[in-house]
Amino acid sequence: MVGPENSEKPTILIRGWLWFRDIPSKPLAKLRGVARQAIELAKDDPRRLIHSLKVGLTVTLVSLLYYLQPLYNNLGASAMWAVMTVVVVFEFSVGGTIGKCLNRGLATLAAAALALGANHLAILSGGENEPYVIGLFVFIQAVAMSFVRFFPKVKARYDYGMLIFILTFSLVSISGLRINEVIKLAQARFVTIVIGASTCLAVCILIYPVWAGEDLHKYVGKNISQLGNFLEEHMDQCFKRSSDARIEITKPSISNLNSILVDSKGREETLANLAGWEPGHGQFMFRHPWKQYLKIGNLTRQCACRLEPINDYLNSNIQAPQEIQCKIQEAFSESGKTLKELAWAIETMTKPSSANPHIENLKTASENLKILLRSGIKGDESDILQIIPIAVVMTDMVSSVEQIGDAVNELSLMAKFKSKTGNGVEGESEIGHDKNCIEIGMAEIPSLSVAIDERTEFSADEQILI
Amino acid sequence: MVGPENSEKPTILIRGWLWFRDIPSKPLAKLRGVARQAIELAKDDPRRLIHSLKVGLTVTLVSLLYYLQPLYNNLGASAMWAVMTVVVVFEFSVGGTIGKCLNRGLATLAAAALALGANHLAILSGGENEPYVIGLFVFIQAVAMSFVRFFPKVKARYDYGMLIFILTFSLVSISGLRINEVIKLAQARFVTIVIGASTCLAVCILIYPVWAGEDLHKYVGKNISQLGNFLEEHMDQCFKRSSDARIEITKPSISNLNSILVDSKGREETLANLAGWEPGHGQFMFRHPWKQYLKIGNLTRQCACRLEPINDYLNSNIQAPQEIQCKIQEAFSESGKTLKELAWAIETMTKPSSANPHIENLKTASENLKILLRSGIKGDESDILQIIPIAVVMTDMVSSVEQIGDAVNELSLMAKFKSKTGNGVEGESEIGHDKNCIEIGMAEIPSLSVAIDERTEFSADEQILI
Repeated sequence: MVGPENSEKPTILIRGWLWFRDIPSKPLAKLRGVARQAIELAKDDPRRLIHSLKVGLTVTLVSLLYYLQPLYNNLGASAMWAVMTVVVVFEFSVGGTIGKCLNRGLATLAAAALALGANHLAILSGGENEPYVIGLFVFIQAVAMSFVRFFPKVKARYDYGMLIFILTFSLVSISGLRINEVIKLAQARFVTIVIGASTCLAVCILIYPVWAGEDLHKYVGKNISQLGNFLEEHMDQCFKRSSDARIEITKPSISNLNSILVDSKGREETLANLAGWEPGHGQFMFRHPWKQYLKIGNLTRQCACRLEPINDYLNSNIQAPQEIQCKIQEAFSESGKTLKELAWAIETMTKPSSANPHIENLKTASENLKILLRSGIKGDESDILQIIPIAVVMTDMVSSVEQIGDAVNELSLMAKFKSKTGNGVEGESEIGHDKNCIEIGMAEIPSLSVAIDERTEFSADEQILI
Repeated sequence: MVGPENSEKPTILIRGWLWFRDIPSKPLAKLRGVARQAIELAKDDPRRLIHSLKVGLTVTLVSLLYYLQPLYNNLGASAMWAVMTVVVVFEFSVGGTIGKCLNRGLATLAAAALALGANHLAILSGGENEPYVIGLFVFIQAVAMSFVRFFPKVKARYDYGMLIFILTFSLVSISGLRINEVIKLAQARFVTIVIGASTCLAVCILIYPVWAGEDLHKYVGKNISQLGNFLEEHMDQCFKRSSDARIEITKPSISNLNSILVDSKGREETLANLAGWEPGHGQFMFRHPWKQYLKIGNLTRQCACRLEPINDYLNSNIQAPQEIQCKIQEAFSESGKTLKELAWAIETMTKPSSANPHIENLKTASENLKILLRSGIKGDESDILQIIPIAVVMTDMVSSVEQIGDAVNELSLMAKFKSKTGNGVEGESEIGHDKNCIEIGMAEIPSLSVAIDERTEFSADEQILI
């Protein structure tokens, strides 16, 4: 029993020493981690750094009220309200800042006026009852305004205003009990608040402004284009892999799909709310149809949702007849192209006319696949059973893509997108690709040619793609 | 030309009169609409009304500082900070209120201490440079803290604290330039803030407290149970309709599915963040595994997402072989039962052991369906093609339900759910129903009995359900 004890002691000592030695390095490692995260945040969106500098600048500017004797003599201790306003009101986007300024300004004015009225009423009611009457007023308005904050519309846009209303009403009405010069004080405060708010607005709008509307516009476009990329590249890889070699599938695009599904809803709604406060800027008018972006966003999410089950099938080695694979691949790649055209139309604010032929192709491809499956079902059954889930996802997706197309068309009418000058180069190479694909299919299975014969009523433009 | 003009004039007059007459009724109608909405909000969750009354009570209580002479003499104009604290800090849930109180309190203390230190440094640097040094400090801290607010973790839990830090640091350090009794002033403010915050906390916790953790717990359970109901009832209706008469499908459950998909994510994350601030209460310990609820919520959303395409098939009249319909119906109803058992386990905080047999049944049903489809595919092809999309959705869903089961099991281990005292009555009637269903199938198609023979290795419990 002596041996183990002896050898244990030094181990404990060594462990203790190691633990002790690591103490300074642990917080250092953490600090390094934080620094790395900070650099990533700044690289990811440099506007964050600019925003921080803008806040610093504005706070320092407003502090001048304290440093400069003549200004301070006029405003006194109320000057602190200017600093307060800046810190509380300065938001990342112009819309956020304007919204908070308006909320704060209007709520302060309205609440102060009402509170002075309430004070007057209380004085009229007689000296003794004054505190009770004012207490009653304060109670009633606090209850009412707290309840109004639960209204969904108020919560989305005027929550801050309601808070300031309760605050100002309470402060002004109870101050009236003690300070007789309440109006003079309120004046000084109001002036400082206006100074703070206007400095804020000036810095926010004039120096590298961040427009929530522009962010929303880009974000919705980016999501559609990500979905399009996913469809084009990812599905391509998926089919290549089953026919060619085992190519490593790039996982990032799947996680992109997930981020569209999960995070976009809240972000889009916030941005649309903020964008509503913004004046016209750049290509956007004052009443740009921001709500329509939410509709497009919802449809994009729906489409991503319908694509989600596809992940499960990607890992299985698909062994379906070549011509069915071809049709499915065609539909996916057409969807991808449609979505990318739509995203491009949103981005450049041009009419999405170039997406229309893709949508037509898509409908044709989807119909063709259905016909093919019905006629081809006499083939190897287990293979067809394997491919059917993907075909189902595809059919769902096609209707989703069509809906997105309609919604973008509506947007282009509402926001008066400009017409595009034609470019037809991109399309040609794709047609060649699809034709190849069909020729392989035609050679292999006769039922396909029957399916094609059934569709002779289609226009020449569509027939190329059948 | 005289005739129409004559008849037009009175029309304009009448229209004008009608428009004029409607003026008072329009705002009245709007007011009535708002009142109706308010009543609905209060009925929907009476805690909203109680919260509003609590806010009113607390604001009025704190206003007493102004009414009572001895209190006012001690605190002076700083008493307004108490009102301010109450209005800004009082949140709907206990977690929100505690979080804001801690954020406000700690940030104020830290910022005030640092600002006093900065002031001291500035004084040491010599009288002339003082404003510049302080201006530099204010600038640096405002930039740094504004940037720190972009860190996702900080944004989720400490955003308000960061705001208060910037505010307090700026106010205290620039006040130091003017007011020599800055420490005395800070003391009075701190006391009033503590008074405001403690009144807030007392009212919030002692009178009808709203626990964010409890809300999260119930909400996650409710979503799972809604999904279970949707599966059981809705799918039942769907198949009844195709075989029996055209029964009206109740749409509300589809919209429930949508609300799970769209709104739950943000709400769950907010509640989990708030729940993190709450002390132990009722059945929940201080460190209840709130994060696990987020995981369960994510899986529930995934399951709802996979079910979403089913809506498109509900409107088509399904005409598949009876025994396949039976299998699918069985799988959906088993999933429904599993989910409802899991929801019940969460709700009552008991171990979800009663869900396990359902999960086993579910796996069996899913396997059986696959076998059946493979063997039964020689039947009427167009019918099978019609049923396959639903079968695909079902397979996806089964794996989702299994994952939810695993996650709930994990939760029950982490949160030490109590074991359940057995109840076996519910299950029996279901077995009878399923048996019926199988007997119909058995009579019609021989391939099913082969499928069943293949599975003789299952336990007796499972065989009843095959």
